[in-house]
Amino acid sequence: MYQQRLQNVLSKMKEQNLTQLLVSEPSSIQYLIGTRIEPGERFMVLLLFTSPEKEPLLFLHRLFPVTPTGVGIIGFSDADDYLGMVARETDPHLPLGIDKHLFAGFLIGLMERRAASAYLNGSPCVDMVRAIKTEDELQKLRIASQLNDQTMEIAKNSLRLGMTEKELEKIILDTYQALGADDISFPPIVAFGENAADPHHENSNRPLTAGDMVLLDIGCKKDDYCSDMTRTFFTAEPTAEQRRVYELVRQANQNAEAFIHVGARLCEIDEAARSVIRDGGHDKEFTHRLGHFIGIDTHEYGDVSAAYDWPVQPGMVFSIEPGIYLEGNFGVRIEDLVIVTENGCEVINHVAKEITIVPVSS
Amino acid sequence: MYQQRLQNVLSKMKEQNLTQLLVSEPSSIQYLIGTRIEPGERFMVLLLFTSPEKEPLLFLHRLFPVTPTGVGIIGFSDADDYLGMVARETDPHLPLGIDKHLFAGFLIGLMERRAASAYLNGSPCVDMVRAIKTEDELQKLRIASQLNDQTMEIAKNSLRLGMTEKELEKIILDTYQALGADDISFPPIVAFGENAADPHHENSNRPLTAGDMVLLDIGCKKDDYCSDMTRTFFTAEPTAEQRRVYELVRQANQNAEAFIHVGARLCEIDEAARSVIRDGGHDKEFTHRLGHFIGIDTHEYGDVSAAYDWPVQPGMVFSIEPGIYLEGNFGVRIEDLVIVTENGCEVINHVAKEITIVPVSS
Repeated sequence: MYQQRLQNVLSKMKEQNLTQLLVSEPSSIQYLIGTRIEPGERFMVLLLFTSPEKEPLLFLHRLFPVTPTGVGIIGFSDADDYLGMVARETDPHLPLGIDKHLFAGFLIGLMERRAASAYLNGSPCVDMVRAIKTEDELQKLRIASQLNDQTMEIAKNSLRLGMTEKELEKIILDTYQALGADDISFPPIVAFGENAADPHHENSNRPLTAGDMVLLDIGCKKDDYCSDMTRTFFTAEPTAEQRRVYELVRQANQNAEAFIHVGARLCEIDEAARSVIRDGGHDKEFTHRLGHFIGIDTHEYGDVSAAYDWPVQPGMVFSIEPGIYLEGNFGVRIEDLVIVTENGCEVINHVAKEITIVPVSS
Repeated sequence: MYQQRLQNVLSKMKEQNLTQLLVSEPSSIQYLIGTRIEPGERFMVLLLFTSPEKEPLLFLHRLFPVTPTGVGIIGFSDADDYLGMVARETDPHLPLGIDKHLFAGFLIGLMERRAASAYLNGSPCVDMVRAIKTEDELQKLRIASQLNDQTMEIAKNSLRLGMTEKELEKIILDTYQALGADDISFPPIVAFGENAADPHHENSNRPLTAGDMVLLDIGCKKDDYCSDMTRTFFTAEPTAEQRRVYELVRQANQNAEAFIHVGARLCEIDEAARSVIRDGGHDKEFTHRLGHFIGIDTHEYGDVSAAYDWPVQPGMVFSIEPGIYLEGNFGVRIEDLVIVTENGCEVINHVAKEITIVPVSS
């Protein structure tokens, strides 16, 4: 158990008048106990109490043998009433904080067993602690992004006419492995030509043809921490339209990064990018949030979007990824990860964002 | 929209006095609309009504462009109050069935918006329809298991002294691809020697050494349907203890398969295997359920365990996978998929279960 992280979570619980909290997200449990367990569809929760007399309890199927320190293990098997076992430990007369990612079937079962007097979304108690990284975590994020920068450069230099998106994907995966990454943080997106107009494109056997634009959205993990970056390259002199759209996205990315400062609200950062794209007439083709928080998970709680009005604080890490998608034609997205600092932000990706024409041959 | 599947779900809803149901599992939505959408952490639900005047509604982020027939699409963006949009379509004076895998954060948000008078686990309305496969689905399951049988034989014949678990894993993955499988249904488990004593072993760089037992738990997908099989091989003449444990597991597997008949309860099928292992003195080392349902997902709703008393019906498909795990020493698991038929069951895996000694050299 990471004691400082636990104390930070307990403080957040007290601020919210919560005395008991169920944590179920594997990454949140990992964040607190230091061990990653993937129970699949099986039940797993860490029950936290603000009372100093009650130690944290991990309810875990006996299939998963772990021995974290500072936490009581309550093992169960498939035929046990594990929800009843939880309800025996909670105070039925008090509210219970619930992890936003607990399966609803388990929550309904706890409600049927009258585990608490009310059920509240308790995830912010953990998420708001996870949102502010320690220097150790920041260093791991920088290293993961260094690997990602190197991989992006190698991917860019590997472009050949006739190669398919899936072939370039394989080069990216092999590069991560060769450079010592532990895993990918999400399957790489490799989009050639008109495929880049779909922000969630699935890599295909489409070959690279002369003049295609190339969008690469890639990320790896190192020491449990994720990276995530997007660049859009040209393989020929851009048309006037391509140049205009590209520069709009680049300006949106840079405007948002320049705007970031302690106390800026996430919605304001989003607007700093979105207003550029709106003024350029492409508001409707920027179909997603500006960014997402990142850490142990690629997508952590917190969006850079109109829906979040938090003022940002030093140690927060998120993506800045404006995009414009012209269906059937082409798409541009430029994404960096940034760390909020006392003086603004530190951009932890360093691959050039100027228009880059990659010479390609067969 | 698959109309017959929808009608079957609506019938189940009527049996449970449910007029409105939220389906959120991507595989259940795929089962009904015919398209797989993976929204990640984003909200996605299919809202079904028993009233013939109200068409099904799919609430979906605008990032995911799909055009299924027979369903209304309600698109939203990251900054919209999508839970409020759902609450505007539900009847607040009636109970709402909830998908067991909906995230609790969304359920709590619907409760705050008073979307319904009560919230019940509505998953059985879909799960019990999915549990009984049509002949078309059974044929796809047989084909996926044929590919799995072929791959198991190739894996067995690829065993070499000094090769690592990860190397054999790569052979298995390459074989699936070469045989035309679409994907794996789960990462293959390759366990040499004492590693087989961990039922959820993660493949390592441990090399195969003379005399090791080899446990392979593998599965692929073909045309959306999954396979899943385990075999345990010897690389030398088994010791008396290894032989005794192996034969106990084999007897448990065969006893359960022979016992299956229309009307047999899942808990009774579990007991048909478990009693054999208990009589052999290894009850405590058989640490999991006997089996799980399978179809579009590797693990579908329904366990062959003491916790489920359903009588089985023709068209149900599940695994029969007894195991004995002797920590630090060795483990044995033997798993087949079976289809319940009018006359008993059809075992759709055909790799031999007799003690098999694979001759290995470097």
